[in-house]
Parts: sequence; structure tokens; C-alpha cells
Amino acid sequence: MSQVFVNIALSLDGYMAPEGMTLAHWDTADYKDWGAKWGAMMGWLLKQRYFRENHGFGAGGEIGAVNDMVRRTMERTGANIMGKRMFEQGEASWPEEAPFHTPVFVLTHEKREPWVRPGGTTFFFVNDGAESALAQARAAAGDRDVRISGGADVVQQYLNLGVVDALEIALAPVMFGGGRRLFENVREPLPQFKVDHVLAGPDATHVRYVRT
Amino acid sequence: MSQVFVNIALSLDGYMAPEGMTLAHWDTADYKDWGAKWGAMMGWLLKQRYFRENHGFGAGGEIGAVNDMVRRTMERTGANIMGKRMFEQGEASWPEEAPFHTPVFVLTHEKREPWVRPGGTTFFFVNDGAESALAQARAAAGDRDVRISGGADVVQQYLNLGVVDALEIALAPVMFGGGRRLFENVREPLPQFKVDHVLAGPDATHVRYVRT
Repeated sequence: MSQVFVNIALSLDGYMAPEGMTLAHWDTADYKDWGAKWGAMMGWLLKQRYFRENHGFGAGGEIGAVNDMVRRTMERTGANIMGKRMFEQGEASWPEEAPFHTPVFVLTHEKREPWVRPGGTTFFFVNDGAESALAQARAAAGDRDVRISGGADVVQQYLNLGVVDALEIALAPVMFGGGRRLFENVREPLPQFKVDHVLAGPDATHVRYVRT
Repeated sequence: MSQVFVNIALSLDGYMAPEGMTLAHWDTADYKDWGAKWGAMMGWLLKQRYFRENHGFGAGGEIGAVNDMVRRTMERTGANIMGKRMFEQGEASWPEEAPFHTPVFVLTHEKREPWVRPGGTTFFFVNDGAESALAQARAAAGDRDVRISGGADVVQQYLNLGVVDALEIALAPVMFGGGRRLFENVREPLPQFKVDHVLAGPDATHVRYVRT
């Protein structure tokens, strides 16, 4: 059966996004230095060849274990789920060929027709909650896996539903000092994980936790 | 020159201690389940042979890379610094031969004569702040290193002073859901670290960060 997984980058001090990284300051990356902080956290990813090709950043880039992991993450994913804020930031940033190539279920109160992008990404706007989005994503993913893409509040919702089979964290050595924490609002009974795999990259430590 | 280092265990969600783990509930480890949570975070350490011998837990225990790391951490340490709360909890828990075997500088407002324990541990009570404690610890440590032992607020003070050369974290896969966070109150300019070493144990991921 297909899995539900989270695959995100995290700052050393536990933030998914630095303070100031909001749509209001999307074009002013020097606001609270959010651009440099985000870049430092994502540096390991931005230089991988597979990621660069997928995002149209041009040729070149690193190959190796991290690049292979990035490719496998993409290839195993049959559907994505994300929050409204992540979608809106992406809408302002992604190339026309949005970098998912799957159905993407956006948790939002906004009513909106599906938005079809070239390259296989279609955004569906789900108004009836996280469990409904997951059911739709599972159906769409078929044998492939469902990725909870973010942001933090959406990951927290699925952790609290107890449905996250694997939690894959790229822990970068950068400190943010503030921002959106991944781990808060997670309630009892707390999800239980064990370490499944560690890939020690030079710029991030990639740990895969699986549900026990 | 000797280094200043932090070596602590951390829950997956970023806590050094679970909610409820206070002196008031020291004898009721089922209060908010703090004992089980703490034990789950420290499980990797509690079964190492060197740790068991040092704490008088009896013979046996694991040997290998993690045990070697625990021994090296102890052997390199020429002085410890800790906060008042950690000291008080330890005072209620440590065996008569306290498990430090070095001078220990306790940050506190309490005026108290040095407390000499068998086995080489002497607690000195420092009333004039973190920088003074560090100067005293450096002098006492000689060629060996100074360990910032905890708790979270003390680690934060030294991070903010910019004097932490190495940050060694045993990241355990347990979730606490609440408690004392390691990373908060850390201010700009934020300390800058890079990954120096990763030891992937079965029960915790040991990452060593060094100052850049």
C-alpha cells in the first residue's frame, strides 16, 4: 500500500521557514534576512542536478547519494498535499511548469476550479479538511506515495491524525532564531517514530524516521 | 587551546526535557509521563558500558562507536558548567560519587561554599554570571575542554555569548510534545555552525556541529 510521507528541510533550531518569509515580503528577501537564511537551509538541495533540471535552473549540479535521494523522492510521489500559504507562495514563484508533476491537493477555504499546469501538475482546492484531502490524494496516487509537502501547520495536522508513515528531515546546520516551527501543536497521543536511515551529507543531515 | 562544547540529547521535536520533569515531580516520574519520555530520549546512553560504569549501574552494556564517543566526551572534559536547576535535580539524583570527576561551575544566585564529592568532582557556586563561570572553568580545565552541561537556558546563554566551539547533539526519535526547548531566546547575530561529524546510531543520530 502506498505511504504517506513528509519530506522537508529544517533549520538546526527547528524552523521550516525563517521569520519574515511571507507573501508580503516575497520580493524583499533582505527583509529580516529571510532570503539568505532560507538559501542557507536549502543550499544542499539547490545544487543537486536533478533538482536543477526539474526547476529549470539549467545544466550542471551535483550527482551522488543526495541527488539520487532527491530523484527517488520525486519518483515515488503520486500526489502532494499542501497548505494555502505554501501554495500562494509557490504561485508567486514556480515556473509555469510547476515542479510537482502530480495532482496537488491544496487545503484552503477558497473555492476554486482545478488549476492545470503544463507538465502534469494539477492543483485541486480542497475545502473540507485534511482527511478529505488525504483520501483524494491516496486515490490519485495509486501505487505511488502521498507527500505532505508543507507548510508546518499542515504537517502538524497530519502528525496529529496519526497517518504519517515516514518523516524525512534534511537538518541543515543554519540557525534561524525565529520563524515557523515544524514541531508545535502536536498533541497526545504523540506519533511514535524510529530512525530508519541516515544520510550524512556535507550541508545537511538527512534522517528518515518511520512510524513504529 | 581548549574548546568550549555542548553535548546534549534532544528530542526529535527539539526539547531537552519533557514537560513535568521538574524538581517538584522528581519522585513521580509518571507525572505527565516525563520519566518514560526522558528514558526514551536517553535510551541510547543508558545502555553504554562506559556510562553504566561511570554511574555505578553495574557491569555490562554496549561497546562500540557510541560507547567510545561517550568515553571520549568524558575524557576530554576538564571542567563543567551547569545551571542551578540542573544542579538541584542532580543533587537529588547523582550517586555520592557525582559523575563528573572535574570541577563543576554552577550558575546560581545562591551563595554556598564549594561542595567536594568523592571521585574528583567539586561544585563551585558562581554568583557573577556566565562569563565569569567560563573564565573559571577555562582556568580549571587546563588543556582539556570546557563542557556546557545544561540546562537549556544555560546553553542559550553561551550560544548568545558566541563562545560555543562545538555543539554535539544526540537527536533521539522520540517526540515530547512540550517541555524545555533547546533553541529559543537565541539572538542575532546568530551563531554559525557547520556539520563536522555524524554518527548514525540505532537509537539516536549523533551530529557534531562546529563553529564556522
